[in-house]
Amino acid sequence: MYTRREITHQRMKALLKKHIQNRVAISNSEADKFCDLFAQRTVKKKSFLLRKDEICRFEGFVTKGLFRIYHLDHNGFEQILYFAMEDWWLTDIDSFNNQTPSQLFIEALEDSEVLLISKEDKEYAYENIAGIEKLFRTMTQKTHTVLQRRMIDSMSKSAYERYIDFIQTNPGIAQRLTNLQVAAYLGISHEFLSKIRRKIQQQGQT
Amino acid sequence: MYTRREITHQRMKALLKKHIQNRVAISNSEADKFCDLFAQRTVKKKSFLLRKDEICRFEGFVTKGLFRIYHLDHNGFEQILYFAMEDWWLTDIDSFNNQTPSQLFIEALEDSEVLLISKEDKEYAYENIAGIEKLFRTMTQKTHTVLQRRMIDSMSKSAYERYIDFIQTNPGIAQRLTNLQVAAYLGISHEFLSKIRRKIQQQGQT
Repeated sequence: MYTRREITHQRMKALLKKHIQNRVAISNSEADKFCDLFAQRTVKKKSFLLRKDEICRFEGFVTKGLFRIYHLDHNGFEQILYFAMEDWWLTDIDSFNNQTPSQLFIEALEDSEVLLISKEDKEYAYENIAGIEKLFRTMTQKTHTVLQRRMIDSMSKSAYERYIDFIQTNPGIAQRLTNLQVAAYLGISHEFLSKIRRKIQQQGQT
Repeated sequence: MYTRREITHQRMKALLKKHIQNRVAISNSEADKFCDLFAQRTVKKKSFLLRKDEICRFEGFVTKGLFRIYHLDHNGFEQILYFAMEDWWLTDIDSFNNQTPSQLFIEALEDSEVLLISKEDKEYAYENIAGIEKLFRTMTQKTHTVLQRRMIDSMSKSAYERYIDFIQTNPGIAQRLTNLQVAAYLGISHEFLSKIRRKIQQQGQT
């Protein structure tokens, strides 16, 4: 007999396995070996996986829910680096790889489930499981590309254009967020976001 | 008898080989096989390796000189993403990996030499040369970390702190740049940078 927790763990690992096998050529047994390195974790809404000044001991794969990864600017305002929902990865890459105190907070915005791997186990996987090096090489290239675009867009596109991009690129996330959270991601005020939304609504009616 | 160009090419490839062997465990013959995929290119000061709207067909390893990688914001002001000098890599990761038009300019700030690899040859190397996947996985993690820090610092540190960080992290580059170039990297005006420099000088004298 399996416990409820064990059944959940099996379901989560099946999602991770599918995610990996969609991205790299890897045998069933190698994929299982990799998935077995992850520990399951449920995170209640408004709870934190990581807080500033802690060392990030994990890289996580989200199987349910939604997280925001943010830091505080010198005025104490939140700047959201990215959101992570089902089928997305999360970590503070800086703190995780260098095992130094983080500048980031990782907070669940909904009741969430995540699979976590430690740095030691990830290093083990790079050396011993074929395909894992390629998986993270391509994944890091993609996240780096996204961050570079975000940096360029923040200087070269208007808030209106960036909002349109955001809802088009992330249709699943946008409707699960509050106005405040979207504004903190775009780096604009709540009021300015409302103005942009009214403009879009008016354009839709004409 | 070797031509002067062939001798230069051998010298450049020796630098690349050393760079790789310092970073991953790779045999001499595998490292040579990888280095042989690169073409040499000399780039005169103020010439461009890449301009906006072109597709970036290369990833480059700098063996001599200095480049700046920048884009223009909506007011036509330059924002420098990063500098690349000897022993550094350069590309537009977005345009190179997706073979889409670039938003970036890559310009030589000094007479420079660079070794270039095409996307096809890089993909060949990933599949056929042991260690190359690891080399670029770790390299992309590092550049991603640097970009994330830059993004966080731009919001959470003062221009003064960011200037100090810049000259401490890049002692070799700072003295080869004009005030205007450093200001465009920090996202501040030329005048404001002069003010910061005067403040540091005064502190040094007291």
